[in-house]
Amino acid sequence: MAVDYETMNKIVKKALSLGKKELPKGRVADYIPELAKARPDALGICVVGPDGTACKAGDTNLPFSIQSISKVISLCMALELHGVDAVFSRVGMEPSGVAFNSIVELDLQSGKPHNPFINSGAITVESMIIDYRSFEDMLEFTRALCLDQDITLNRQVFNSEMATCDRNRAIAYLLKSKNVITTNVDSSIELYTKMCSLNVTAESLANFGLVLALGGIDPRSGKRLLKAGTVQTVKTIMLTCGMYDGSGQFAVEVGIPTKSGVGGGLLSVVDKRMGIGVYGPALDEKGNCVAGKVMLKYLADKLGLHLFQG
Amino acid sequence: MAVDYETMNKIVKKALSLGKKELPKGRVADYIPELAKARPDALGICVVGPDGTACKAGDTNLPFSIQSISKVISLCMALELHGVDAVFSRVGMEPSGVAFNSIVELDLQSGKPHNPFINSGAITVESMIIDYRSFEDMLEFTRALCLDQDITLNRQVFNSEMATCDRNRAIAYLLKSKNVITTNVDSSIELYTKMCSLNVTAESLANFGLVLALGGIDPRSGKRLLKAGTVQTVKTIMLTCGMYDGSGQFAVEVGIPTKSGVGGGLLSVVDKRMGIGVYGPALDEKGNCVAGKVMLKYLADKLGLHLFQG
Amino acid sequence: MAVDYETMNKIVKKALSLGKKELPKGRVADYIPELAKARPDALGICVVGPDGTACKAGDTNLPFSIQSISKVISLCMALELHGVDAVFSRVGMEPSGVAFNSIVELDLQSGKPHNPFINSGAITVESMIIDYRSFEDMLEFTRALCLDQDITLNRQVFNSEMATCDRNRAIAYLLKSKNVITTNVDSSIELYTKMCSLNVTAESLANFGLVLALGGIDPRSGKRLLKAGTVQTVKTIMLTCGMYDGSGQFAVEVGIPTKSGVGGGLLSVVDKRMGIGVYGPALDEKGNCVAGKVMLKYLADKLGLHLFQG
Amino acid sequence: MAVDYETMNKIVKKALSLGKKELPKGRVADYIPELAKARPDALGICVVGPDGTACKAGDTNLPFSIQSISKVISLCMALELHGVDAVFSRVGMEPSGVAFNSIVELDLQSGKPHNPFINSGAITVESMIIDYRSFEDMLEFTRALCLDQDITLNRQVFNSEMATCDRNRAIAYLLKSKNVITTNVDSSIELYTKMCSLNVTAESLANFGLVLALGGIDPRSGKRLLKAGTVQTVKTIMLTCGMYDGSGQFAVEVGIPTKSGVGGGLLSVVDKRMGIGVYGPALDEKGNCVAGKVMLKYLADKLGLHLFQG
Repeated sequence: MAVDYETMNKIVKKALSLGKKELPKGRVADYIPELAKARPDALGICVVGPDGTACKAGDTNLPFSIQSISKVISLCMALELHGVDAVFSRVGMEPSGVAFNSIVELDLQSGKPHNPFINSGAITVESMIIDYRSFEDMLEFTRALCLDQDITLNRQVFNSEMATCDRNRAIAYLLKSKNVITTNVDSSIELYTKMCSLNVTAESLANFGLVLALGGIDPRSGKRLLKAGTVQTVKTIMLTCGMYDGSGQFAVEVGIPTKSGVGGGLLSVVDKRMGIGVYGPALDEKGNCVAGKVMLKYLADKLGLHLFQG
Repeated sequence: MAVDYETMNKIVKKALSLGKKELPKGRVADYIPELAKARPDALGICVVGPDGTACKAGDTNLPFSIQSISKVISLCMALELHGVDAVFSRVGMEPSGVAFNSIVELDLQSGKPHNPFINSGAITVESMIIDYRSFEDMLEFTRALCLDQDITLNRQVFNSEMATCDRNRAIAYLLKSKNVITTNVDSSIELYTKMCSLNVTAESLANFGLVLALGGIDPRSGKRLLKAGTVQTVKTIMLTCGMYDGSGQFAVEVGIPTKSGVGGGLLSVVDKRMGIGVYGPALDEKGNCVAGKVMLKYLADKLGLHLFQG
Repeated sequence: MAVDYETMNKIVKKALSLGKKELPKGRVADYIPELAKARPDALGICVVGPDGTACKAGDTNLPFSIQSISKVISLCMALELHGVDAVFSRVGMEPSGVAFNSIVELDLQSGKPHNPFINSGAITVESMIIDYRSFEDMLEFTRALCLDQDITLNRQVFNSEMATCDRNRAIAYLLKSKNVITTNVDSSIELYTKMCSLNVTAESLANFGLVLALGGIDPRSGKRLLKAGTVQTVKTIMLTCGMYDGSGQFAVEVGIPTKSGVGGGLLSVVDKRMGIGVYGPALDEKGNCVAGKVMLKYLADKLGLHLFQG
Repeated sequence: MAVDYETMNKIVKKALSLGKKELPKGRVADYIPELAKARPDALGICVVGPDGTACKAGDTNLPFSIQSISKVISLCMALELHGVDAVFSRVGMEPSGVAFNSIVELDLQSGKPHNPFINSGAITVESMIIDYRSFEDMLEFTRALCLDQDITLNRQVFNSEMATCDRNRAIAYLLKSKNVITTNVDSSIELYTKMCSLNVTAESLANFGLVLALGGIDPRSGKRLLKAGTVQTVKTIMLTCGMYDGSGQFAVEVGIPTKSGVGGGLLSVVDKRMGIGVYGPALDEKGNCVAGKVMLKYLADKLGLHLFQG
């Protein structure tokens, strides 16, 4: 990092204190009982520089379910397995401008989901993985990308989600009827739901962000974990589609490629410079960590991290 | 530029020759008779570096109507006049995922247009300008941003568009009924249509691209033409929304903020490094210059211009 | 009538008293100030038998603006002028299943409005009349059909509606852009709005209902006012589309072809047997007179008026 | 009947010959292989009068799958079991104005299907039956209503439909996610598909039509098979929603409550007067027997059967 460790630590702590003020504006997701159990005042942020040095503040080691951030990991795997052309023959690259679980746009359009970060697109991505990788393989892949061997499946969350996934099943059967999904619907839904139910921490996400910032290289071993093309594609889609239907505004105001999950996580990539992980289950009305935007905007302004920094 | 002038010239010429091969795949816009008169084989590209040195190939001085690229200029003016909060209280920042002239999304949503680069958003932007700037003011502003005093109104195009703008009028009255437009509908439509009917060249656009790349500074005089915040906002929205419903794919594959117009123009900004202008009226099915993508992708690969270049 | 005059009078009075109990559930339309001035407790019902004998109860001579019921009159005129094929080449005959002023369905479909009783369809119908009949002609036509020479234009309502008709203008320009309307937009909107602003009474509507019940014959003079085919068409569309998006339910539960207006009027046709007019400006959430349904259902049950009476 | 048997026979034969001329305009349904096997030139019509006398012409005893006409039978059963209020708390009574298998309208609206004759509504109706009646019970019920003990399940059609019902599953899971369906999705889909796969004849349908025309009475035994209220409701919904998105036009032009199926059947009810059954697998673009409309319009004109016959 351009600033020394101590300065960085202060900046991160200041960001946390600014974020805490936002918490009362947010609400914990309650569409499944397990998510509703989260502490609304939990908040943590972890910034990891290219040398692996981490600056942390708050609840950076509290485990929480990764939810939609797993869509990044599954997209990485599908791109590694099949390449960009094959993946995007079934899923688009366009922001949808609508809510993450929309069925309408799916049926009005060609049937090809708008992008891999809405549910329809992500389930399609899983359908391209199930015949090639087991959940155990995907878990190992996640641990590797997050430099975190402690990542596990949260069974309570998984069971809770499986009991309430009728809408996702509807989406999957619609995709099947349109020949977008050509493999097994049940297995695709199961893998999708398991991936959403992985327990991570803000620190795991910061590590993953750094791997993406470094173009797919593990900063510890120097080993390539992902192809450069995969990472370039993923970062761009994180920028255009990562924050649900608030992606455009976040890109303008913060300008850091980021993917959110309703479990409260944020995965941010400052290209070539750092990875940032956030945990804060109090969400804004679009499903993004309410404190996260303020914290990331503070860092962007303070450290010049906006994509089009003047 | 990192490469010398001669090398750059060669690269630009090579891009042109690659672009020419794409032309048979495109079609000239024919929704108004004046646009249909364009030569489908016209093609030009101009790259301007930070010192103002231009590398040109093909039809870079052929005038053509700016069309939707004027939406960038009007957005700049509205941001300069009212600031980011006021402008975006009436228009969103989100990619729409639908065609540029959609009415459906407008009526299903809050009524706030998705972004300033679809017709509904752009007409709303004009409605925020008409009480503050005349068309003559806007023409001067355009000339200043493009470093080109020869820009004029194309009367034939203007008359032709005014005779076929019923859909835009429908959009404007719908916006009026929803209190998004609060000024005069006819004047907003007239300014919108006049701005679309300005005659520019690939070189004018390259100059404008450079001004944006330099954060709003005129490279000749060093004078600030636009506030840094305005430029940062505009570049981000060009990236997420600049290529109609092909914006996401263009961002992934080329990674250069670009705005297209159905007159055949492309305005591209390589942040801090260069401005690029393209003219080629043969369009792909989304309304973007069909050769442009290939030419810009070639430049991006050759010169490492992708936003998330590995 | 099958029942004697005195019995009928009692039944009508009983209907009124049942209707009055419903009034607290309704709300007067307030989208234009003039409509909001109506007394929410006003209620009247008039039943006219084939011999012209009228049974009245409540506010049957209070004038109110006809609003959407004028769509029946304009449809009659267009059918008389151009015949069924010409009219329905521009407007459909299908219930829309959506709100009366929907733009979405218009743009998603072919552009042909679903039916002549939603705004888009009615404006299209007016556009087929303006080159053949003046507003004065239409006023005379209305007076003849309602057997009421006192019908006049309510200038306050007309001015109030013209000041707030941006949505209708949007609809009309969209129809123009799709070549559904091929005549003058402004004149079509003006005639549409004038027709909506005619002052009628419950008694005028009952008379009109009787003319329709008798297949287009004036019960007083025996003169044919409308072709039999026109009347058959109009009655069927009143049954399938007359009560906005509550038409299906009304057909099932009451089974009497009826057209409502947000001014509080109901025009009902008991085929071959009677005409019924209702006035009650307290509306249900679909825009239909809240007391009307209860009164008409009572009459239908008591007198066996349901279309498929067992 | 008002006309004698011989005259009626001639009229029915003439109708058949008129219908045959329409056949080249139609196409056999091919969305499942079993349906595609139907002979496109098959055509039959059967008219049954109140005394049970049948006039037949053409292929009136050729078995074919009942398809959507079974929705009438299931609606009858649900109404008999639960009453009108309970049934219509889950399904609307409004024509939808959209295609029979629309998902969009389902998700944009409250989630309550528009009516019991589109797939979403019919699957919901089945979900209200499965805990009370077995398929065998429903088969007996169908045989009783059609006065035809020979009705059986067509296994080939059933298997073929089960193999291609992903869209219906999508609809059912969406309804489950919105708590419109509260019972088992798989059982609801299975019963729905079995009911669609029953083999009937034009004569069976004519008999069923007569039972409905007589308000629910078996003309042979005089026994009441259905409550009068059930029959009144069903006839009205057949009129407003029976012919997919061509229901409104059919009501205007023919004026006989009718339900169609993509197997080629038509069930028509001339209230109090006759039942009519048609078989002709060549369909128009809306999925209705292409010859049926011409034959029924001929009968309506010749015999004065339109609802609002002048």
